[in-house]
Amino acid sequence: MKEVAVIGIGMIDWGELWEKSLRTIAVEAALKCFADAGVDKVDTITIGCMSGGLFNNQEHLGSIVPDYLGQRFVPATRVESACASGGLAVRSAFLEVASGMAEYALAIGVEKMTDVDGGEATFALATAADQDYEAFHGITFPGLYAMMANAHMFKYGTTLEQLAQPSVKNHFNGSMNPHAQYPFKVSLEQVMNSTKVADPLRLLHCSPITDGAAAVLLAPVEKAKEMNKPYVVITGVGHASDTIALAQRQDLYSLKAVEVAAQRALKMSGKTIKDVDFAEVHDCFSIAELMVMEAIGVVEPGQSGAAVMNGLTALDGDFPINPSGGLKSKGHPVGATGVAQVCEAVSQLRGESGKRQVKNAKTALTQNMGGSGASSVVHILEARS
Amino acid sequence: MKEVAVIGIGMIDWGELWEKSLRTIAVEAALKCFADAGVDKVDTITIGCMSGGLFNNQEHLGSIVPDYLGQRFVPATRVESACASGGLAVRSAFLEVASGMAEYALAIGVEKMTDVDGGEATFALATAADQDYEAFHGITFPGLYAMMANAHMFKYGTTLEQLAQPSVKNHFNGSMNPHAQYPFKVSLEQVMNSTKVADPLRLLHCSPITDGAAAVLLAPVEKAKEMNKPYVVITGVGHASDTIALAQRQDLYSLKAVEVAAQRALKMSGKTIKDVDFAEVHDCFSIAELMVMEAIGVVEPGQSGAAVMNGLTALDGDFPINPSGGLKSKGHPVGATGVAQVCEAVSQLRGESGKRQVKNAKTALTQNMGGSGASSVVHILEARS
Repeated sequence: MKEVAVIGIGMIDWGELWEKSLRTIAVEAALKCFADAGVDKVDTITIGCMSGGLFNNQEHLGSIVPDYLGQRFVPATRVESACASGGLAVRSAFLEVASGMAEYALAIGVEKMTDVDGGEATFALATAADQDYEAFHGITFPGLYAMMANAHMFKYGTTLEQLAQPSVKNHFNGSMNPHAQYPFKVSLEQVMNSTKVADPLRLLHCSPITDGAAAVLLAPVEKAKEMNKPYVVITGVGHASDTIALAQRQDLYSLKAVEVAAQRALKMSGKTIKDVDFAEVHDCFSIAELMVMEAIGVVEPGQSGAAVMNGLTALDGDFPINPSGGLKSKGHPVGATGVAQVCEAVSQLRGESGKRQVKNAKTALTQNMGGSGASSVVHILEARS
Repeated sequence: MKEVAVIGIGMIDWGELWEKSLRTIAVEAALKCFADAGVDKVDTITIGCMSGGLFNNQEHLGSIVPDYLGQRFVPATRVESACASGGLAVRSAFLEVASGMAEYALAIGVEKMTDVDGGEATFALATAADQDYEAFHGITFPGLYAMMANAHMFKYGTTLEQLAQPSVKNHFNGSMNPHAQYPFKVSLEQVMNSTKVADPLRLLHCSPITDGAAAVLLAPVEKAKEMNKPYVVITGVGHASDTIALAQRQDLYSLKAVEVAAQRALKMSGKTIKDVDFAEVHDCFSIAELMVMEAIGVVEPGQSGAAVMNGLTALDGDFPINPSGGLKSKGHPVGATGVAQVCEAVSQLRGESGKRQVKNAKTALTQNMGGSGASSVVHILEARS
């Protein structure tokens, strides 16, 4: 298997981009990535998108993206694993390069969620849950994650303050991210007093509906060396599934697919979580960030709430999480999120993250997940010079 | 890059399967494949499905399929390139094995199209076209392929008889396929007098709406050798895109993405089309089969109509096409079609196709495409013993 480097990243400003179309934002992110890498022709493209069909009446991005990116005839593969589609696009591009099928493999993540109204968006997102046994009966994702939050609080005594703290931290970090949809700070009181969505989750525990795209360019490590500047290598790739329906799990307070995916990625890279300097994780709801901390091994099960209150995961803590602002502040265009996590990790590992730079960042972990943790993709990235 | 073999195939009977669900048919095809291979645990799964979202309100098959197949925690990737999603699933599984990421890689193709009514199905399929410049204005696929048929007739003098003949041939072959949705013969007169759909295309020029699934199991060639029976190797993989909108093409009477994908696959396998014994191609409409014959090089441009009338592509001809019955007779559950093509190729190369067996079949080509030829995936398969 060939060693694979990230030689370019491209992020656009995320938000409610009503003046732009699905294809436009995908192409804009890709062009920024091309400019960063100094490359304008690729061998293959992977596209992470959860549901162009339900959000935009547009499937077949594997044709439309190369077409509008000036890459006609280039093979392109759209991949989907609900909100983990972006991480999966990076994994798929990794395989293109690792197998020798391609030299330059572009991974794009994209979702244009505001072409439909809020109810339709909630319906579209619910197709990531079990349609027959969950969504059909009326439950949507805030309700599913609320059950997980209640289970975590009941099992471990996690408090409402602890549940609110990831949002405070992530908005603080996101306030320094020019691409973020909501680049402002929020206080613990604001989070805890925001509108209730699904008890105990409130509005400021929940990631928003977002239009956005992100892109990364992968190539064999020899190509990265030729560029004569610091670069980043993907040394671990982990991917796992779990039961789609929450009711089928052994418990509701742990994320087994995340645990397995992280173990696989760390094993492949020959590292343990102690060797990792920071992480970008999937905080679709604040409870998700707490549960992911436990699943990837940053803390023992049940210790995430106390750890986040103690500042472990703050930008200047021992294990910063979501320096980008996370899904909560940066936004969550579902298919784009996993690619944007890798963009942030690379930006940090290159030391290019400005005010939100993590000090001495050499090794990063990105964790993306779909549904109620029913699939997860984890990458380990390392700085090289 | 590791050499990759097909060590198992699984087909279910296709049709209007109202008593079964999307997950059920995917799992049934996979279990048949497991039984064929003598394997019950895989390292990775790829799933070709065009639109679980629009047909079944169910995305995230990368969770639901391993869950219901007894493969919890196994990584699974759903891929989509409209009606080429199945071919893409095989290509993606190929990369898993070729890269060394997996030993046993299962590719499943599935689509459950009759959970919605005919109008909704036509709408869902039209999301494979350009939503902004084609579908939004009301055109759907029969109309797009009708324009291609008219262009081909105008350019080359292709006749209505020639346009009808692929349907006659494919229904003849399909009458011997127990898995086919419409396993009966039709006459040239029946095709030419069937209900008009979009001039010059009539009902019996068009592939049907189908529920179906198919699966293939890939592994390194060493694993196939250990099974001590004849096996099949994938020696060529080609994949290409073209403009999504028909209006952007240089002409309407050729399929450039198919041409490029076929050239790539043949080059990778070190063969020319003259080395290929038969093909399974994407006859979503009868004009498509004629245009594909020209694109993959079976005949010169403009010669496909005469060739099909002369019996070149009949089961006992010099270059049999669609011994399975093709999309026309076997059915076209869009995400499953590309995987089923590989199932048929393997069955033929193993000499297991009964009454519809192609004589002395040693090398096969499968060609799957999305939209109006806006993406295509081609595989070259060879028998080994």
